[in-house]
Amino acid sequence: LKNEDEERFREEFLELHPTDQNEIFKLMSNEKRKRVYNYITAREFADIFSGLQHYEQKMVFSELEDSYALEMLNELPADEITDFFSEIPEHISQYLLEKMDKTEADNIKHLLSYKENTAGSLMTTEFVTVLPSQTVSEIMERLRMEGTDAETIYYLYVTNDTGKLIGVVSLRELITASLNEKAEKIMKEQLISVSPLADQQEVSKVIKDYDFLAVPVVTSNGKIVGIVTVDDILDVIEEETSEEIGEISAVKGALDLEVSSMEATKKRLPWLILLLFIGMFTAGLISSFESTIAEVAMLAVFIPLIADMAGNTGTQSLAVVVRGLALDKFDRTKVFRLLKRESLTGLMMGIICGILVSIIALLIPQGNVILGFIIGTSLFVTILFSTISGTVIPLIVHKLKIDPAVASGPFITTINDFIGLLTYFSIATTLLHYL
Amino acid sequence: LKNEDEERFREEFLELHPTDQNEIFKLMSNEKRKRVYNYITAREFADIFSGLQHYEQKMVFSELEDSYALEMLNELPADEITDFFSEIPEHISQYLLEKMDKTEADNIKHLLSYKENTAGSLMTTEFVTVLPSQTVSEIMERLRMEGTDAETIYYLYVTNDTGKLIGVVSLRELITASLNEKAEKIMKEQLISVSPLADQQEVSKVIKDYDFLAVPVVTSNGKIVGIVTVDDILDVIEEETSEEIGEISAVKGALDLEVSSMEATKKRLPWLILLLFIGMFTAGLISSFESTIAEVAMLAVFIPLIADMAGNTGTQSLAVVVRGLALDKFDRTKVFRLLKRESLTGLMMGIICGILVSIIALLIPQGNVILGFIIGTSLFVTILFSTISGTVIPLIVHKLKIDPAVASGPFITTINDFIGLLTYFSIATTLLHYL
Repeated sequence: LKNEDEERFREEFLELHPTDQNEIFKLMSNEKRKRVYNYITAREFADIFSGLQHYEQKMVFSELEDSYALEMLNELPADEITDFFSEIPEHISQYLLEKMDKTEADNIKHLLSYKENTAGSLMTTEFVTVLPSQTVSEIMERLRMEGTDAETIYYLYVTNDTGKLIGVVSLRELITASLNEKAEKIMKEQLISVSPLADQQEVSKVIKDYDFLAVPVVTSNGKIVGIVTVDDILDVIEEETSEEIGEISAVKGALDLEVSSMEATKKRLPWLILLLFIGMFTAGLISSFESTIAEVAMLAVFIPLIADMAGNTGTQSLAVVVRGLALDKFDRTKVFRLLKRESLTGLMMGIICGILVSIIALLIPQGNVILGFIIGTSLFVTILFSTISGTVIPLIVHKLKIDPAVASGPFITTINDFIGLLTYFSIATTLLHYL
Repeated sequence: LKNEDEERFREEFLELHPTDQNEIFKLMSNEKRKRVYNYITAREFADIFSGLQHYEQKMVFSELEDSYALEMLNELPADEITDFFSEIPEHISQYLLEKMDKTEADNIKHLLSYKENTAGSLMTTEFVTVLPSQTVSEIMERLRMEGTDAETIYYLYVTNDTGKLIGVVSLRELITASLNEKAEKIMKEQLISVSPLADQQEVSKVIKDYDFLAVPVVTSNGKIVGIVTVDDILDVIEEETSEEIGEISAVKGALDLEVSSMEATKKRLPWLILLLFIGMFTAGLISSFESTIAEVAMLAVFIPLIADMAGNTGTQSLAVVVRGLALDKFDRTKVFRLLKRESLTGLMMGIICGILVSIIALLIPQGNVILGFIIGTSLFVTILFSTISGTVIPLIVHKLKIDPAVASGPFITTINDFIGLLTYFSIATTLLHYL
């Protein structure tokens, strides 16, 4: 590329796997990128483009000439264009849609109408359908002719003349069947599909549980409108994982390593400020017990211990629920069983930690039985309450479909802190003249 | 099943997808399960067995007769048997290996020799190899004959006569190629493979990045010994996610919803007790400042605020690093860039939160400029330090390959608490006579 040797660049670069072309392209300077656009065709560039992150796509797209860009778009699978269009300003995507091939544009407009994170927005419309009466050799001949356009040819969807999905043939079954067998003979009629409105988490669960390479998206009247493939699901899982971790650590939307510290601050600071204000409640609580502390300063020693244990147990339960909700649907029985288990777990952990800390409080220089009783009982209440609130709060938030951020770790921690310290200082104040 | 109508049960049950058979089987009582073993063949039962969790497999396996169990094992893919064998006591797996088919047993012994969580332990040895000189129609004929045994036939691996992997043909390319083309003509020679010793995270990254359905496992001398398929990777990703969440929330290995509260307690309590003892350091720290608190009880009010903010900022950075390590390899440049970004982020968040809390401390009834200065400066130090320690500690732990549990959220929180409160009380004690 340095020597402007077009032939040699084309030869060596196009040999590489698109993912590797991509890695190299990303490292190029502005100028080198421009040279690449000249050297390789829009069709060849489409593979590279589709492997870029959204923010890289936007930058690169602005560097392309209109005609080159349009030619490239025509090469991309519909689901990727849709994905990209939902990230750029609407007037630009509208402009591009007008310039694009009419059928393709209508297709994309349709896909754009599905809500984010549903099967409809994830699916691609490039799949292969066959008729029940077609034979294996006819189908194979057809695949040989036009098989390269579909996103996957590993499943063939059998539809009747009204477009209703009536069966699926895997390419494996096709290959191992005898050549003059009809599709209706070898197809599986036990259909597992998802609705276009299904949540992406549900789609990902179906693919995972059934070890599918793709799942058909079927409307309520039985028509197949698209498929979601396993490689899209791998991206979904990554996204959901980040969300789960975000919930537990209040860092939602700021996990990316690539953003600047200014942007990271912008995303994380609001959380911290919010938490700072919520923390004022706890501060207010302690301040109302100031006279107790003034009398026995020793009591302040255990404040961080109570606060930390409240945080730790609450976060443990929260992690269990967040993970559980991600992996499974919760019905009433399951919720009840989980609640029972967590309460019992909290009870046992509370009793043991409570006894333990009482003994410690007895053994320290200024310790005595009353102090042991106060800290032991408070820790017991703290752990029991924190386990339950760490379970119940995310469940309620999930049930009421409130923004799950409300159930993130630090919020639960603050509530647990409050209850734990309230218990601690209430008991301490009551028993103050025995200390 | 209730009416002991074998015919009807077989007919209806075997129609279902294995995953659904599985769901139904799981809900059956002990007695009904025994009836199932009688009604369906070991070959048919293999599909159900392979969908069960390890602990269910163990229970079911103990209910099977020896011959039935062995027949079933012979039907399972080698990687699943290996997985199961690594979970059961060694004398049982040894006994079974002796009874099994010799070639299969040798195969499994070999797979068992790979370390857990490596490509070698994940891979299956059931894949299809072809010779470079075979034509498309020859290969298709062979697949038609024996294609049902391999775990996936969507990639065909081209090996030379010494068994060295020299190319890959996807089934898609095979289907769309003309019938008398030779494998060496249509194969891709740009091979992307993993070593049998590669970490499962690396394997999963390759499959994800390249949108593969399977990746070949190749030894250092170029021989293909197995393949890892995308459905195995989906399970790996789930496992890794649980690990990540475990690290952040100190609930490692206890995320499963199905365990009893006794078991959950057993797994979570040791963490809590450990954290309780670590928390004693913080308690000890405060106790050394008891005289300061005795003079100005007001100071205790801000203890939980400092502790909580230390925890929150530290966990945010931890989450960024844990996620980052899961998604990508870190080289020196990346580590340096991340450190720089987090330090700057910590600095900005520290300054803003510090100023904010100073203003609050000025406005509260007992507030004054000195208190504002003390709490503001301490919070600034706390946030800056916590962001850095939340980044550096997991990175060091990862680099030194120490058990990452040492870098889990609560541990980092405790260290941050300690530093934050030490700063707070040191400044407060110094400025005590101005308060």
